[in-house]
Amino acid sequence: MTLQNNISLAHGSGGTQMQELLQTLIWPELDNKILREQNDSAILKNRGGELVFTTDSFVVQPIFFPGGDIGHLSICGTVNDLAMMGAKPDALSLSLIIEAGFDIESLRKIIVSIKKTADEADVKIVTGDTKVVGTGQADKIYINTSGIGWRNEKIPTGWNTVKSGDTVIVSGTIGHHGVAILAARAELPFEHELKSDAAVLSNITVPLIKKFPNIKWMRDATRGGVAAVLNELASQANFDIEIEEAKIPVTEKVRGAAEILGLDPLYLANEGRFILICPENKSEEILLFLRKYEVSKTAQKIGSITHQATPGKVVLTTEYGSRRIIDMPSGEQLPRIC
Amino acid sequence: MTLQNNISLAHGSGGTQMQELLQTLIWPELDNKILREQNDSAILKNRGGELVFTTDSFVVQPIFFPGGDIGHLSICGTVNDLAMMGAKPDALSLSLIIEAGFDIESLRKIIVSIKKTADEADVKIVTGDTKVVGTGQADKIYINTSGIGWRNEKIPTGWNTVKSGDTVIVSGTIGHHGVAILAARAELPFEHELKSDAAVLSNITVPLIKKFPNIKWMRDATRGGVAAVLNELASQANFDIEIEEAKIPVTEKVRGAAEILGLDPLYLANEGRFILICPENKSEEILLFLRKYEVSKTAQKIGSITHQATPGKVVLTTEYGSRRIIDMPSGEQLPRIC
Repeated sequence: MTLQNNISLAHGSGGTQMQELLQTLIWPELDNKILREQNDSAILKNRGGELVFTTDSFVVQPIFFPGGDIGHLSICGTVNDLAMMGAKPDALSLSLIIEAGFDIESLRKIIVSIKKTADEADVKIVTGDTKVVGTGQADKIYINTSGIGWRNEKIPTGWNTVKSGDTVIVSGTIGHHGVAILAARAELPFEHELKSDAAVLSNITVPLIKKFPNIKWMRDATRGGVAAVLNELASQANFDIEIEEAKIPVTEKVRGAAEILGLDPLYLANEGRFILICPENKSEEILLFLRKYEVSKTAQKIGSITHQATPGKVVLTTEYGSRRIIDMPSGEQLPRIC
Repeated sequence: MTLQNNISLAHGSGGTQMQELLQTLIWPELDNKILREQNDSAILKNRGGELVFTTDSFVVQPIFFPGGDIGHLSICGTVNDLAMMGAKPDALSLSLIIEAGFDIESLRKIIVSIKKTADEADVKIVTGDTKVVGTGQADKIYINTSGIGWRNEKIPTGWNTVKSGDTVIVSGTIGHHGVAILAARAELPFEHELKSDAAVLSNITVPLIKKFPNIKWMRDATRGGVAAVLNELASQANFDIEIEEAKIPVTEKVRGAAEILGLDPLYLANEGRFILICPENKSEEILLFLRKYEVSKTAQKIGSITHQATPGKVVLTTEYGSRRIIDMPSGEQLPRIC
């Protein structure tokens, strides 16, 4: 059987064309035993511990961008959500909503990218779904991945142990993903110099938590960027958080592009960066550990939890010594960034 | 805080508007503790047994139809996939892709319907995601639900125990969902007489499997209808399957509507009907059990597994005694039926 060049509504109808798409493209690329059993659900081994379960839909535009694509992103995003809870990611589902007319070669590239990223994260795609909607009823392709992982290490899941004096660490330079997507979208001249930071984080978080069980809180800084993550923590935990502009790792390229685009790197989405809160006396050791890994080699201590406040605020000390409040992002930051 | 009347791109940006949408609409309606912890992943108790994991995206059009709506459907579909594997459904994820401009009252109705159906199935929505895309980049709303369940009963997951002489049972009258959607879409005069069969099946399958551990195979007859399910089984198990037209339960209304629409009920999607294969000597007892439940009160034995064949075929004996092969559905059956 050979596939046509473009997806048609028939590929989503549950009949022979859908079977053909699965059998000639999706299953061979993803290649694993559980998928080939062709049940509508996967049966997985119980690996013990608590179960962690998460979901994310990806509607990024453009679907291919410097440093990644929607397939890569859809694995990183879900794996990282599991990683932030202290879980070892185990299995993912993959659900595609494809616009009729989408070209099959692009679909193949996306599936290949999904497989490569899943391998890197040591997770399997075990169950899936394919829907096709009419031309003009989606924008090329939307992907949902849900994921499960098993959690044995007891990193706190809430903010209850966070207290005054704790250190705020960011795992690396910020803003690459947001700026790369925007530059690609606007076809800016520096488009190819800016690469998304999208990356699998579980390969670092699993050993990190094992070695440092006193880490108090972790969260990946995706939509809304570092500003959104710190504001969520401040408002939930009722603590003020102070960060220092001079310590926030931003590359020259991102800083320059953000300036041209009129954006603040603190609000730009990342897909391979996380914030962690730890006791001050462990922060140096944790930084050294993080910097041994490529994905977090530019990790920095950027500030600390200061004092109780209701609701808590995020306060930035600028390079000139002035102080300003970093609000929760508001309005249309950047639609379809992930 | 009050919401505006329509969804805007800002509701999907990870900032204050998204928080507002979650806090004023989605979380209060879905009301559960795990969601309110506001992590990007849910942590669930390990209930023992194997884990069953499934996913489905729902793109049904229209989103409200006689007998259901996209919210109801998105819970039934995923719960039923878990049920077919012999699992007790436990928790679901909910991921929304919403077109900018979608009205918030419709969103609220959908969320209320989701909650009602989830309660009926005794599952919780434990994690979620909301994305907003531009006007014209989706058709109102698409929903992904993924689900996990725990499996302790040992119903076979493959077709390996199916053999000649086994009985094929359908759990009730077929074709209601497909015909109801099409009638609603075409605004046919009999639109309101035809209601979707969408229903939660786990409340019957869990006790069914417990009482009849010798059931060999179950599958819900969704996209592609009974024809697709039986063809999948025949081709995988390498057995011919014979069914008798006179025994297939189809209501007069569905038969009439299908005739007007030029469709064969065997190919119409159902969302609350399943096929099961069992030993012939257990079939009467199983039928009696099924008929005690509202959702399967019109269950019928429709045929049997006949003999080995590669690949297996599905053969229908018509009411006039002639025989014809029921093929796997091909082409655009009915796009966006679920």
